[in-house]
Order: sequence, then C-alpha cells, then structure tokens
Amino acid sequence: MTDVTRSRTTSIGHSTVDSIEVCGYDLTGELMGEVDFAAVFFLLVSGRIPGKGEVRLFNAILVALADHGLTPSALAARLTYTGAPEAVQGAVAAGLLGGGSVFLGVFEDAGRMLRAQSPTEDSDLDVLADRIVADHRGHRLPGLGHPTHVNGDPRTARLVQIAEEEGLLGPHTRLMLRVQARSGKPLPLNAGGASGALLCDLGIDSTALRGIALVARSAGLVGHLVEESRAPLGRWLWDTAERETTYTPPD
Amino acid sequence: MTDVTRSRTTSIGHSTVDSIEVCGYDLTGELMGEVDFAAVFFLLVSGRIPGKGEVRLFNAILVALADHGLTPSALAARLTYTGAPEAVQGAVAAGLLGGGSVFLGVFEDAGRMLRAQSPTEDSDLDVLADRIVADHRGHRLPGLGHPTHVNGDPRTARLVQIAEEEGLLGPHTRLMLRVQARSGKPLPLNAGGASGALLCDLGIDSTALRGIALVARSAGLVGHLVEESRAPLGRWLWDTAERETTYTPPD
Amino acid sequence: MTDVTRSRTTSIGHSTVDSIEVCGYDLTGELMGEVDFAAVFFLLVSGRIPGKGEVRLFNAILVALADHGLTPSALAARLTYTGAPEAVQGAVAAGLLGGGSVFLGVFEDAGRMLRAQSPTEDSDLDVLADRIVADHRGHRLPGLGHPTHVNGDPRTARLVQIAEEEGLLGPHTRLMLRVQARSGKPLPLNAGGASGALLCDLGIDSTALRGIALVARSAGLVGHLVEESRAPLGRWLWDTAERETTYTPPD
Amino acid sequence: MTDVTRSRTTSIGHSTVDSIEVCGYDLTGELMGEVDFAAVFFLLVSGRIPGKGEVRLFNAILVALADHGLTPSALAARLTYTGAPEAVQGAVAAGLLGGGSVFLGVFEDAGRMLRAQSPTEDSDLDVLADRIVADHRGHRLPGLGHPTHVNGDPRTARLVQIAEEEGLLGPHTRLMLRVQARSGKPLPLNAGGASGALLCDLGIDSTALRGIALVARSAGLVGHLVEESRAPLGRWLWDTAERETTYTPPD
Repeated sequence: MTDVTRSRTTSIGHSTVDSIEVCGYDLTGELMGEVDFAAVFFLLVSGRIPGKGEVRLFNAILVALADHGLTPSALAARLTYTGAPEAVQGAVAAGLLGGGSVFLGVFEDAGRMLRAQSPTEDSDLDVLADRIVADHRGHRLPGLGHPTHVNGDPRTARLVQIAEEEGLLGPHTRLMLRVQARSGKPLPLNAGGASGALLCDLGIDSTALRGIALVARSAGLVGHLVEESRAPLGRWLWDTAERETTYTPPD
Repeated sequence: MTDVTRSRTTSIGHSTVDSIEVCGYDLTGELMGEVDFAAVFFLLVSGRIPGKGEVRLFNAILVALADHGLTPSALAARLTYTGAPEAVQGAVAAGLLGGGSVFLGVFEDAGRMLRAQSPTEDSDLDVLADRIVADHRGHRLPGLGHPTHVNGDPRTARLVQIAEEEGLLGPHTRLMLRVQARSGKPLPLNAGGASGALLCDLGIDSTALRGIALVARSAGLVGHLVEESRAPLGRWLWDTAERETTYTPPD
Repeated sequence: MTDVTRSRTTSIGHSTVDSIEVCGYDLTGELMGEVDFAAVFFLLVSGRIPGKGEVRLFNAILVALADHGLTPSALAARLTYTGAPEAVQGAVAAGLLGGGSVFLGVFEDAGRMLRAQSPTEDSDLDVLADRIVADHRGHRLPGLGHPTHVNGDPRTARLVQIAEEEGLLGPHTRLMLRVQARSGKPLPLNAGGASGALLCDLGIDSTALRGIALVARSAGLVGHLVEESRAPLGRWLWDTAERETTYTPPD
Repeated sequence: MTDVTRSRTTSIGHSTVDSIEVCGYDLTGELMGEVDFAAVFFLLVSGRIPGKGEVRLFNAILVALADHGLTPSALAARLTYTGAPEAVQGAVAAGLLGGGSVFLGVFEDAGRMLRAQSPTEDSDLDVLADRIVADHRGHRLPGLGHPTHVNGDPRTARLVQIAEEEGLLGPHTRLMLRVQARSGKPLPLNAGGASGALLCDLGIDSTALRGIALVARSAGLVGHLVEESRAPLGRWLWDTAERETTYTPPD
C-alpha cells in the first residue's frame, strides 16, 4: 500500500497553467538565468542545487567527458545520420547506445568498488586500498589504464587539481588515487575512474553515474552530427568497410 | 577529389598520448575548470566559445528545455528501464527517440521559417511578419500555442527578458515576436519557438537546433531514471494500461 | 467521448492465466506450429492470416530485405556492440535507427505515390503512369534506381515472378512497372519500390510499410552481431576512421 | 596478423552488379520464394539452412515470442510514436530497448546454465539437473516462473509438443524440464526458458539467443504501431500518468 503510494509520486517536475516547477524550484524565477545547465542537471539527479565549487567541478567532469573524437559512438551516430538525416534524435540515440560496459561501465564499477569500502575522512585509506587491490588480484581494477594516454590521462590530473582548489577532494577520490599508487601496476588513473570517484564524493547516486557520462557525451554527438551534415564521413566509412573486407561464405 | 578530402577531415576533437584538443582548444588547459559545459557544447556546435552574455542565454535555453515532467519521453525512458535497468543508455535513448516532429520539430520549423526571411537589424520586421502570417494562412504557425500554458508560456517571457538584459534580442527573435503579435490568433509564443529564434540570433546552425533540445532533455531523462530506480512508475503504468484497456479481436 | 473509448481498445493480443490470444487467434492452438512467423507478422499488421500464395510472396519480400552486407546500419550495429556487448538490444536498435528516409523512405514514398492514384483492375494504367511521371518531372521517382544494381535489381525480377506465379501481381505493382517503363530514364525498379507496390496489392496499411522493412532488417542485424562477436570489425573501423582522417581546428 | 585478416572477413552477405549472395546462397535463385523468412534468419545466425522440422520449430518459437499485449516495450514504442510518428524506426527501436535483463535475460541465462553442463544424449540428466538446482540454492533458477501463467505457460507445453513431433527434443531441453521437475518449487517452465533450451538443441550460438527474441518482438511492435496510428493510446497514457501521480518536491 505504502509502496503503491510511493510509486505514484514524482519529485522531478510539474506544470500549471502559468508556472513550471523543477525539483522544488520555480523554473523561470529561480533557475533560468540564475544557475547554469550543469547546476540544474546536478539538481535533477541529486535533488539539491550544488555549491559554487561543486558546480565548477561538475562542469569540469562534464567537459572532460563531452567528446573523444571519432569513437565508435561518434561513428555509429554519423552512420545513422547517413540513413536518417531527418531524425537527428535517432542518430544521437544510436551514438549513446554504445555507452555500455566497455566504455562507460568504468564509472559505475569504480563507484561501486569505492562505495563498498565506505571511506570517510577518518578511514585508513592505505588499508582500504590494499584490500581493494587484494580483492582484484587477477582481475582488472576499474578506473586504471587508458589505450591512448599510457603515461597518464591528462584529464585526471586536471580534475584532481580542480577538486583540490575547491576543497572537494574527498575520501572516495583519495582512496581511488591510493588504489592506483598501490596497485603495483604502471597503469594511470583514467578520467572515467577519477570522475566516478569525484561524483561519489559529490554524493551522486551510483545509478546516475553512467547517465552523467551519457549527457556529457550527447553534446559531443550533436557536434559530430552538425559536422556530418556539412562534411560527411558516413558514406566514406561504408565504402571503406565494403572495399577492405572480404566476403567468405560460411564453412 | 576535393570532396573526398573534405569528407575525411574533422574539427571536433583529437588526442595524442599526452594531450586532448576539442575544436581547437586544449581540453585540460583551456576548457576544463575555465568554461562551463554549456560553453563547450556551444563550441562543439558552432566552432567558437560564446561570450559571457551568450553563455548565460544559452544556459537559460538549456535549463528551460531540460524537463517537462511525466511526458511521453520520460514515460518511455522509465518503461525501458523497467525491462533493462542494467543498460541505462538504452532508457535514455528510448526517451530521446520521442523527440521528433510533434514535440521537437518546432525548433527547426521556427528556425527555418525565420531564416527564410533573412531578417537583419535593418529589416522592416512588420513586413516580414505579415508575409510569414500570409504564407501560413490555413496552416499552423510554428512556435505558437501550448497545450498547458494557454495564457502564455512563462519560459518565453523569461528568455526574452534574459536576451534583452544581455543585448542579444536579435532580428530573428524580434521577428518571431512580431509574427505572434500579428498572427491574429490568441496563441502565445511557446518556449520552443522562442528558443529556436534565439538560437538563430546566436548564429547556431539549423541542423543543431533539435540536437540542442535533445541534450537538454537528456538531463531531465537521467533525472527521471534516477527517480525510477528508487520510486518506480513503470510497472504501475503497465498494470494500468492492461487494466484500463479492452481487448477486441480484429473485425 | 467516443474517441476516448476507441483509444482504450487493442486488437493485438491478450493473456489470461491459461491462454494467450493474438489478433483473435489462440496462440498455442491456432498459430504455433500451424502457420509460420511471416504469417503471424502479416496478421499483426493487417488483422488477417494471409493465404498460401500471399505467405510465399510476403516471405520472399522479407527475405529480399533481410540483409545487404556491410551497410551503414550493419556498421552502426557492430560499432554499438563494440561498446556494449552485454546489451544486444541496443546494437540492434542502433542498426534500425538508420532505417530512415534515405534507405527505407522508398517503401512509403512508392506506396503513397501509387495509392494516390487508386489503381484498380479496371484502371488505364498507362494514363496513371504518365500522370505520375509528369507530376515528378524534375524530382526523383521513388522506387527507381540502385547504386549497385545499375542494370536491374535482381530481387525485383524475382519478386515480380513470384507474384505472377501466385496470381498476386495487382494494379499497384503493374502501375509501378509502367511508371518505370514510361519514366524516360534508364533507372531500374529497385527492390524497395517493388516491395512497396506488392505490399499495397496485399492490402497492407501504408503505416506498416517501413515497419515491415525494419523487421526484415533486424534479422540481418542479428546475423551481423553474431558474426561481430566472433570476428569483430568494430575496432578496425574505429582505427581506420582515426588513422584516415585529419583533425583540423575550426576556422 | 591472422587476427587482422579474420577481423576483415564477413560471411553474411555480398552484392555484385547483378547478383546478391547471403551466407553462401544466391539470394534470388536459392532463397527468395524457396525458403521462408525464418529459415533465412536461422541461416544468418547459424550459417546453415535448417531442415524442415527445424524450421517448423524455429517458426513456433518466433511466433510464441512475437507479442505479449501491452507490455512496457509496446507502451514505450507507442509513446515514442506519439512524439515522432514520422520516424517509425525510432518507435520500434525504443520498444526493443526494453529487451534487457528483466524480460529477455532469461534466454541467455537459461542457455548458459544448460550449456555449462554440456548435456548430451548419453548424459545422466538427473545428476546434471540436481547439480544445477544445488548451484542455484537461494537464487532464482532462470526459465522458471511466470507472473501471469502461474499454473503453467501454455506456450511451453506447445513448444515441447512440436519439438517431440519433429524429433528435436534434445538434451538441453530435457535437462531444462528435469531442472523444473527437481527444483522443489511449484514454478512452471516459462516460454523463455523453453525457447532458450530448444535453441541450444538447435545449435544456435548463445550470442544469438536474445537477438532471436528481439526479431520476434519487432514484429509485435510493428503491429502495435500500426494500431497506434489508428487507435492511439499514447496521449491517454500521458494524461493518466500526469493525473494519477502526485508531485512532491525533494526533501
């Protein structure tokens, strides 16, 4: 009974004939023109407006994740646009659908790994880090390693620097850095792992972590599609795939 | 030949082992921590970093469009999450796929209608507005009317106010307002029409208009999905649909 | 009031604790093991079980459209699988999203063009064909031309042959053939145009035409994904795109 | 090197100017009009044309899974159509995106559970079944239980009957039935579990299992969308969701 009642409540938004409310704020009077889009996105996933330092850090995370060049996601979006230029929503959706375990799983995996240790300001982070490293013996440690940035992901250093400047380098991120240092491997902490840890410190729900990366990425995808409409790569990719592969009937 | 060369160029982004560039800017040194996510999104679709007033207005547009409560898009995202909670990207994509002609077409339609008149600071906007109204005799004027906000969309007034404050109320938006005033109908200018016009004044490509609405909406969708994970509506909607409809075999 | 009542009726399917009905038929007793999948799909879109010849022709159309090799759709599906192999539904969806105006619009366009003339057994098809050709002067005639099969789409000849064998070469298809013959252009009738016309003759709703192509294509996409899981092309495409394009900052 | 070569080979299909080949067969001469769509789909996922009994069973599985009434998938497709009726591919894609762990995971989970025991004609299936039941103590057994068909899924009985008639009731399905019988629970074997087991016996790759359910479901979704275009439920669902939920600002 209680459950039914709960399941029919929403805190996201509501309109009347002359007003719109988003998460308890008056959209036109308190949000538009007053706070930026990242702050409203933070509000939508956490129920509160972030502080000034939090907004700067959250923006930096979104900016860090917005684009990665001609990734499989960007290519899928461009190829979809080739067939359906009138339905841009389909091309953006196709690009987001590649945001699964391989590229975006790291946020959630890192977040869950860190939250499982419940690190606080008073934790002995070396002990927790050693426990994590031991638990992952023989398995990949989420958040470590990058195919291109083998000597260190430049976004990680910058994110940590901004978090320090804003006094937001919390126990999850410090634990993540400790895990990297004590992993016994030369793998750098990547931007996904750093972002996942920082979002935990910001109090963001684990369910939201992948979604935050998706919103950031959607901006990059729209950029690729605007470019595709002017300087298309889709048909060249199609031709290349057909020309450079060999058809062999099944055995 | 020239075409082939052009089609193999991208201006969106590029990585080397120790740096990442986005649209000509150094990601970590010039964007992260320096400008907000909306400014980088503006850069991705237009190739330039917006000015301070432009960022404020662009943020206000994104904020205005981020959420609209339990719309068909939000419901589709929540129902998709019901079946595939492990693939949040699918639920976000499902929500975006409803962003077609009915709800998001207005941006492009309004933008194209206004751009077809090439309004400038020197145009006689009354003449252009009368021409648009005459051309649409018997047809719906894009950007006018709202099912809920029948006396005026509160977001429109606020957007126009912010544009005025920032000196960004350009000829496309003034033409759009003139069209509304001279339409001979009591229909208010809605937020979609106002946003489309303001984005034209900001010099945003028509191809990008729907994409900008999609990025804004993706933030709202992630908010709905975080809520769905805690206070689900999906199964209640399913039960309701089954209970309140009647099955009748085809004739 | 009447409208509300109508909008709450479904004729697709219904379950009770011990039975399942699909479009008026008992699923386990009358459909499973009795008729093939294509017949049930025909039932779902038209409300009736097709006759034996109709099923053979409908199967031939679905088979003709199932796969086209490494098309943009197949590549988008494979690239999506690269990032989210655990969510096959996302990769299939990404592949379908390219099924828009450029590749699948032809079905609807051809269907609508033919239906607008209401051809019957008694129509003077030459007159109707000339009218269609005249109406499209300066525009592309839907259903004509193919980038690869420039001398004739082999599927078209076979579809027409099967329709003749089954006595199902109706006025829409004969009109379509007449349009091709009288178009004054050397463009062959492609499989999309032929299928669209044949589906009109089978009495299929215009709304269903693109959907039929999508179901056929989904089978090909699943084939590509099974192959991608064993012999991946996704990362090679990614590498190729990055290697063969040049990054140039925006002007 | 070998890997690169392998990764640039496809066995799915190939076109020349006057012929089209699908998995080693001439499309127009050997497939269209000769075998049905289900047989070609089987070919696409397995590399071989199925025998007559296999086609009948495979068709029965596809028919069993094609539609389930107003499920979350069907509702998501209809709600997407409400906003983007011009992009049917988006509505079908949205419907498929709900095909994740909750509803379609059962195919793969059941298939993997059975294949892990490598059952053959000579296996002692009781021993293997007991091992499976023991391994799942305290966990849900994939393939058992159905929210509506609590006394037995009528599709399961019919699928098993058809498999028996065609001499295709192999060790995976017999093991699955034994698991149900020895589970110590009153939960019936559902159609998903039965289909997964039967597809294993047919030699279908585990990667293909969810894909087969998706193709079947796409037919049902197109049926729902044709109906939605004539007798819409989307706006009624929207109204219902807004009317029957309460907005409460976040704490």
